[in-house]
Amino acid sequence: MNASPHNLRCTECGACIAPEAVNSNFRCPACNGLYEVVYPWSSVVRSSVTAGHPAGSDSNLPNPSALRWLWQERRTSTLAIDQSGVWRFRDLFPILKNAENAVTLREGNTPLYELPRCAEIAGIDWLLAKHQGMNPTGSFKDTGMTAALSVAAERGFQWVACASTGNTSAAMAAYAARAGLRSIVFIPEGKIAWGKLSQSMDYGALTIQLKTDFDGCMNILGELVKRFPIYLLNSVNPYRLEGQKTPAFEIVEQLDWQVPEHIIVPGGNLANSAALGKGFTELHQLGLISHTPKISVIQAEGANPLYRWFIDSNRVMRPVTADTRATAIRIGNPASWRKAASIIDELGGWCEQVSEQEIALAKAQIGAEGVGCEPASAVTLAGLKKLVALGKVTREERAVLILTGHTLKDSQYTIDYHRNELLTAAEAAQATPLQQTQHAALRKPPVVLDADPDVVLRTLEEHMNVSKSVQPA
Amino acid sequence: MNASPHNLRCTECGACIAPEAVNSNFRCPACNGLYEVVYPWSSVVRSSVTAGHPAGSDSNLPNPSALRWLWQERRTSTLAIDQSGVWRFRDLFPILKNAENAVTLREGNTPLYELPRCAEIAGIDWLLAKHQGMNPTGSFKDTGMTAALSVAAERGFQWVACASTGNTSAAMAAYAARAGLRSIVFIPEGKIAWGKLSQSMDYGALTIQLKTDFDGCMNILGELVKRFPIYLLNSVNPYRLEGQKTPAFEIVEQLDWQVPEHIIVPGGNLANSAALGKGFTELHQLGLISHTPKISVIQAEGANPLYRWFIDSNRVMRPVTADTRATAIRIGNPASWRKAASIIDELGGWCEQVSEQEIALAKAQIGAEGVGCEPASAVTLAGLKKLVALGKVTREERAVLILTGHTLKDSQYTIDYHRNELLTAAEAAQATPLQQTQHAALRKPPVVLDADPDVVLRTLEEHMNVSKSVQPA
Repeated sequence: MNASPHNLRCTECGACIAPEAVNSNFRCPACNGLYEVVYPWSSVVRSSVTAGHPAGSDSNLPNPSALRWLWQERRTSTLAIDQSGVWRFRDLFPILKNAENAVTLREGNTPLYELPRCAEIAGIDWLLAKHQGMNPTGSFKDTGMTAALSVAAERGFQWVACASTGNTSAAMAAYAARAGLRSIVFIPEGKIAWGKLSQSMDYGALTIQLKTDFDGCMNILGELVKRFPIYLLNSVNPYRLEGQKTPAFEIVEQLDWQVPEHIIVPGGNLANSAALGKGFTELHQLGLISHTPKISVIQAEGANPLYRWFIDSNRVMRPVTADTRATAIRIGNPASWRKAASIIDELGGWCEQVSEQEIALAKAQIGAEGVGCEPASAVTLAGLKKLVALGKVTREERAVLILTGHTLKDSQYTIDYHRNELLTAAEAAQATPLQQTQHAALRKPPVVLDADPDVVLRTLEEHMNVSKSVQPA
Repeated sequence: MNASPHNLRCTECGACIAPEAVNSNFRCPACNGLYEVVYPWSSVVRSSVTAGHPAGSDSNLPNPSALRWLWQERRTSTLAIDQSGVWRFRDLFPILKNAENAVTLREGNTPLYELPRCAEIAGIDWLLAKHQGMNPTGSFKDTGMTAALSVAAERGFQWVACASTGNTSAAMAAYAARAGLRSIVFIPEGKIAWGKLSQSMDYGALTIQLKTDFDGCMNILGELVKRFPIYLLNSVNPYRLEGQKTPAFEIVEQLDWQVPEHIIVPGGNLANSAALGKGFTELHQLGLISHTPKISVIQAEGANPLYRWFIDSNRVMRPVTADTRATAIRIGNPASWRKAASIIDELGGWCEQVSEQEIALAKAQIGAEGVGCEPASAVTLAGLKKLVALGKVTREERAVLILTGHTLKDSQYTIDYHRNELLTAAEAAQATPLQQTQHAALRKPPVVLDADPDVVLRTLEEHMNVSKSVQPA
């Protein structure tokens, strides 16, 4: 792989541009639209699929069987680039002139967990969770950052930067450090999950808190990259999405190339939904899967611009002032909303919103299956319950929740929940009687006891119903 | 694998006992010693190696080539038990009657990172880090917990418990939840990394804070398991060590079956050093590697009982009152000290202690390579510097640091460090002039600025020496 056969195409006006000619803030000069990466085989695939030819029959296209075999073989390799669950699929995103320039922390290869108890709660037979929080820095952002940071390194940039509510900054700082580049993180002052800020500091980034919100940070960063040779690593960078499409490849590979009916994704800046949609679509176009899954996006009630667009008969996007404890999706003006909206429409998904108490309950229910996630990830289960109630997901259909971050990303949220200090009285009052019962059963506040076996035993007997008659088999 | 061909042998008096007959606190009734798991091939291997026969030539023994091939093949499997980086090696720890009873979160398969800049700092040519913090709950404890919890589940226990400073409780709670068992965590009140406590709550454990220290928690738990059918999951449980030996297998497999000269391990309860030693020793006995590495143990100055034993000409173990910010190794009376001491002696390692400021510096240096770890993990690099200075590790020798926990395990430590609020004046004053310079270069406290591009640009120019002349290639 010594070429980099790709172009950038504006997703709004369709104008194509060579990668070297793109401007520093990755916006189309004609229409201000976002770019997507296209490859020589993209148009060939589209026309052959449209014409009814089986994709993969053209010799210019990657052969599906050969790709499957190659990707499986790489899992036994000791090369870093093959051990990466992102770069293992590099044949479908040849964005580097030389693949050896890839900057990797062995991201990807994340587990696909069965969640039988959550399935029962949601009212379906089979539920899986793709846990992207198991990436090196604890969130799905690593899959995109390894791709875009590698481009920055290959192009010779010494500085990289992003505006981020947390997970993006952690990922950028880690990969920049890995490559020996210097990184700057812009974050809105206050309302930060400190666990995420701590990471960017740990990886050596300079953190600048700006007295504005996320969108204000983005605007200032847009100005900076025009005036300094700093490589922009926010999700407007189309290379991020190329890495972020690989979890789609992993999901179907982990299911022996079967396609689940539904993918449920948390909706914040919406690049993740767009990337997964691009991934599944390309797999289908290349003949690697027989059909695409539906992709549904779930937002928090307090940060729901896509949901409002979705239910608006005029389909107008109006930014909102974002407010939710699920900090990773607290975004009122999502950069990639058009891409995500297209994916929902093209693949036939749905959009829902969920409340703060529904998010907290869903997070505890996922945790009780031994799978820890950050609050934003839990909107998926909360949303799935609504999709099932609406008949958008039926009992027999297979759904995959995309868990985007690790539970350690926001420990304080968990602590506050179990101490019953998370929700306001008004939020808690929104819970149905069933939800109230579920909350009460899941909350496990720490108990403080004297260091006396008898005291402990009495407490166990009283509070936990540990019966002496319970004997192991 | 429908049998469970193993016994438990007391590491003190050598008495053997069937697994079903062991008492509830895993102590030898004759001498109070700890058990280790032994297999039919253990003694065969030892006698054949002692007699000069090549291990593996006896038909009762696993064949080295076949094992290597089998373990590699499993990496391409879609079965959960094969995807686990622990159970993939189950042939060398047949502790279950039926391997399908394994309770797994896809632990193991952790990255082996090169740390070129840390190597230069330490004064050696090649340094690797095996990052066990990339396990599902963020620490190496998962590798042992998947093994021991599976035994508990197979034997029909409904309750499991441990006394833990944090990482063990998180791991136990997650695996218990996965298996549908109920878990109780005993922790000393106060001096807790809340990020770790949050996890056990998230996974549904009942957390009991006892008004005593870690050793006091252990004593009370020892009483409880005698009076209730609760399965004890502290590291005295010998099955924990069977899972924890698998990172040794992963390391040499990742190095194409080459053996590094030195393994550097943080020393807390010391079960990890013992387990890794057992793993490398068994690989050698079975003919899978040509020789064993040295295993050196590094302790914090404030929790250094093994170090005191090591430098004591009479070799007497005296418990200490533990005090260090590296909470994962804040243990004054380590349960597995005899096992670890034997490993150091048998494999030819060393023991060192490092100060609080040395730990903080090493953690920031590892972070600056894009690899985040918890403070306890960083004692390895701090200790390596001393081992190099002492001539115990030479420039040409290959060393592997065992990083035991993820940086997200203790975010507050990182935040305090970068705000220069971590170390006391007395601790900071212990730094050499070189160390002081290194601290100053690594600290990156967040900057707060007005949301104005000109203000930001001025700040970048003033503070960060971003030159407009820097142009990308």
